[in-house]
Amino acid sequence: MSFTYDERIDGALPAVDREAFIAQLTSLSPTMEVLHEREDLRPYECDGLSAYRTVPLCVVLPQTVDEVAAVLRLAASRGVPVVARGAGTGLSGGALPLEKGILLVMAKFNRILEIDADAGTARVQPGVRNLAISLAAAPHGLYYAPDPSSQIACSIGGNVAENAGGVHCLKYGLTVHNILRVEIVTIDGERLTLGAESLDSPGFDLLALFTGSEGLLGVVVEVTVKLLPKPQSTKMLMASFDDVEAAGNAVGQIIGAGIIPGGLEMMDSLAIRAAEDFIHAGYPVDAAAILLCELDGAAGDVDEDMESVSTLLSHAGATRILIARDETERLRLWAGRKNAFPAVGRISPDYYCIDGTIPRRELPRVLNGITAFSAEHGLRVANVFHAGDGNLHPLILFDANRPGELERTEALAARILELCVAVGGSITGEHGVGREKINQMCVQFSNDEIEFFHAVKAAFDPARLLNPGKNIPTLHRCAEFGGMHVHHGKLPFPELERF
Amino acid sequence: MSFTYDERIDGALPAVDREAFIAQLTSLSPTMEVLHEREDLRPYECDGLSAYRTVPLCVVLPQTVDEVAAVLRLAASRGVPVVARGAGTGLSGGALPLEKGILLVMAKFNRILEIDADAGTARVQPGVRNLAISLAAAPHGLYYAPDPSSQIACSIGGNVAENAGGVHCLKYGLTVHNILRVEIVTIDGERLTLGAESLDSPGFDLLALFTGSEGLLGVVVEVTVKLLPKPQSTKMLMASFDDVEAAGNAVGQIIGAGIIPGGLEMMDSLAIRAAEDFIHAGYPVDAAAILLCELDGAAGDVDEDMESVSTLLSHAGATRILIARDETERLRLWAGRKNAFPAVGRISPDYYCIDGTIPRRELPRVLNGITAFSAEHGLRVANVFHAGDGNLHPLILFDANRPGELERTEALAARILELCVAVGGSITGEHGVGREKINQMCVQFSNDEIEFFHAVKAAFDPARLLNPGKNIPTLHRCAEFGGMHVHHGKLPFPELERF
Repeated sequence: MSFTYDERIDGALPAVDREAFIAQLTSLSPTMEVLHEREDLRPYECDGLSAYRTVPLCVVLPQTVDEVAAVLRLAASRGVPVVARGAGTGLSGGALPLEKGILLVMAKFNRILEIDADAGTARVQPGVRNLAISLAAAPHGLYYAPDPSSQIACSIGGNVAENAGGVHCLKYGLTVHNILRVEIVTIDGERLTLGAESLDSPGFDLLALFTGSEGLLGVVVEVTVKLLPKPQSTKMLMASFDDVEAAGNAVGQIIGAGIIPGGLEMMDSLAIRAAEDFIHAGYPVDAAAILLCELDGAAGDVDEDMESVSTLLSHAGATRILIARDETERLRLWAGRKNAFPAVGRISPDYYCIDGTIPRRELPRVLNGITAFSAEHGLRVANVFHAGDGNLHPLILFDANRPGELERTEALAARILELCVAVGGSITGEHGVGREKINQMCVQFSNDEIEFFHAVKAAFDPARLLNPGKNIPTLHRCAEFGGMHVHHGKLPFPELERF
Repeated sequence: MSFTYDERIDGALPAVDREAFIAQLTSLSPTMEVLHEREDLRPYECDGLSAYRTVPLCVVLPQTVDEVAAVLRLAASRGVPVVARGAGTGLSGGALPLEKGILLVMAKFNRILEIDADAGTARVQPGVRNLAISLAAAPHGLYYAPDPSSQIACSIGGNVAENAGGVHCLKYGLTVHNILRVEIVTIDGERLTLGAESLDSPGFDLLALFTGSEGLLGVVVEVTVKLLPKPQSTKMLMASFDDVEAAGNAVGQIIGAGIIPGGLEMMDSLAIRAAEDFIHAGYPVDAAAILLCELDGAAGDVDEDMESVSTLLSHAGATRILIARDETERLRLWAGRKNAFPAVGRISPDYYCIDGTIPRRELPRVLNGITAFSAEHGLRVANVFHAGDGNLHPLILFDANRPGELERTEALAARILELCVAVGGSITGEHGVGREKINQMCVQFSNDEIEFFHAVKAAFDPARLLNPGKNIPTLHRCAEFGGMHVHHGKLPFPELERF
């Protein structure tokens, strides 16, 4: 993870005659907007990972599939790279532009094309906001399940590119589990259909391959999502713990009892206090950790499971259990969690959000590891976890203006991610690899595995014009980075012994 | 669908010195069994699609990953194709040998390596039988959800290769939704890990790509599956209908009401009578159709949903609803369904099983189409459907000894599959493409789409040595076959107007 921009990607690209190229782009379609003045490009220089910024060669905003195909064909013929962008809320720099590349902004593909309530599906354009789908489906008693924290702003096309998750993905799955079909345009301007409306699709599962491919294989121009019936009943509890490890163990016990909560979140002391100061959610500021557990489904089922979870949490050492009395209290308890990031932003000049995953059973050990690393690097860490599915978001608090603190943050983040890999987890749960974690991919995967990624990439985009420098590192980069590949916890990682 | 063996695949292969090659294979490892006598090879000449038969060049039965890798490396170096085989229960000829190819039989990889009850996972070798996993997990109150009808015999490696389903995949998903990780060996003898034990894996989703790839990308040597807690309560009902269309409509209404049954099956009159004559399950022999609906989950929830389903089915025109009183009656009702295929085998010299999928809403229209086609071709069709997920298994009854009847069967089957594609469905739900439906792939996919399949195949196996002639047709074959590509119901398919 280096916050310095990798100049080499742009550096290796051929120079194009910018003015002539923009004239060509503009001539493709009279209705397509092409931005090229510096002040027009500036708003697009970064996505949600604002530590990286690059002003693109130009920005195009197509409105039709034909326009997208024409732009890609022109780019292919001239060897100009293309970075696609949805709403720009991504946290791993997946939509970071290239100085010599087109930024293809899909914001104008913003129509919901069809809602089929009987089939439980919606056909939408990629620029439609995640939450807008649920709002449009609400009159039919349906909703779209994946709910990233950015759901008010993020687009479904970006969700597909990043295989987005959210608080409820423990029970309802990631984006890949909630879509049926995507229409894409390849770098050659071909339109392809991946997936089908029916149970299974013959041939290779290119829909799953494409989902989460971070813009390296093609550009999404239409998505058919599954809609689910709204649960009959939703209830929530908060459990306080004096001990972080006990809270971590309780998570595994809930799942082990065969209960799959709609959401199961954990926050540690620092995160609790920051959120409570900011939102006044009613969190216990003296607790070492809290668990937030939401159950949804048929009313009888939810009540029964709520009792089982309460009993189990008491036995697991919870010092207090609060069941939300009503919808107002439930939403207030969630508000603290959902605003945990900005809350931490209030107590530190800067913070850096990590997105690792681990097998649930490793929660206590990894928490101990983070505490030890935090002390060794002299940086505070606030922990906010999608505990149920083992997706961790440790937030490192730092001050970029203090010399060396950014570098210490990077080093701490890298150690935490490597610990995640060492216990059998991965370097990203839902934020993607993007530009941010490209080096950590060399820790996660062997050179053989990375070579297969490149071979698959080449099947779609042999000239590597789609989002180069993101998601899949070159073997050259891995050699330079020098990180040791940790094979799913099977190779020695001496630090593991300590926790 | 041609029952005649495609000689061209073998014909185009280079001739090897058989004796020298077998000597080389035998010398790879002293413990590896290599069969080459004609009488030893004969049992392996077909899989569950016994209309196709080919005696392979030789059969190898490795016991270790190193042996698998050595066989594949030798095959690659000599340009000899390799067909992997699990238990040989596949219904689409995916494990049909090649005359000039090695048949790599994974039967000796039959150990359950680890059951982690807390994590809800099992790590097994590919030759372990599907049902054996659930039996081993039962002491922990867990089971493996996908349950193909062949589950007593079929192997988990074959399940991965075919992305197998089963009666319960409506609620619990296909194989791809129930596995976390596979270890594979590539044609170059490299060992790769696809997927991870944690929530999501970075990079491209090669696990999903590999699942259902029918042996074209690599050989599975280990599988980590998810285990689920056994449902607290399971109940079942049978509803009788005077009218097939009404039964078809009722299916969509159950799902539309937000109830996801564990299983939701439909049988028509001919299938009902055949099953009842054979099993005496208590089916109504005068009904035009029955629905079998199983609900599982928390006891209160199941009871509540059972009432909703009963009410809904009465309104939808069910003439009789029988709720199984106890486990004995429930199992007897299932026994009729699970033995429907052999039951049909008793009333006809031969039968041919189709495996198409359609969007649920199209059930009534497709049923009408099958009835019309059946009359036009002068062949009886017994319908057995995984109705809940739109997966149809029409069984065409024929007599292979009557001149022309086999050809009429092929023609009827092709029309039914093309109708499935025309309404937005697909040519296979859970049996795979294999050798059987290779021509129908040309109907399902455009040439552009098929080219991408080949490009992805080439990323893993550029010399096309792994299971050539299965799953993905050559464009040459599609041109010869001359079937019109029907684009997800969007291109004209005149017959649709009739139903």
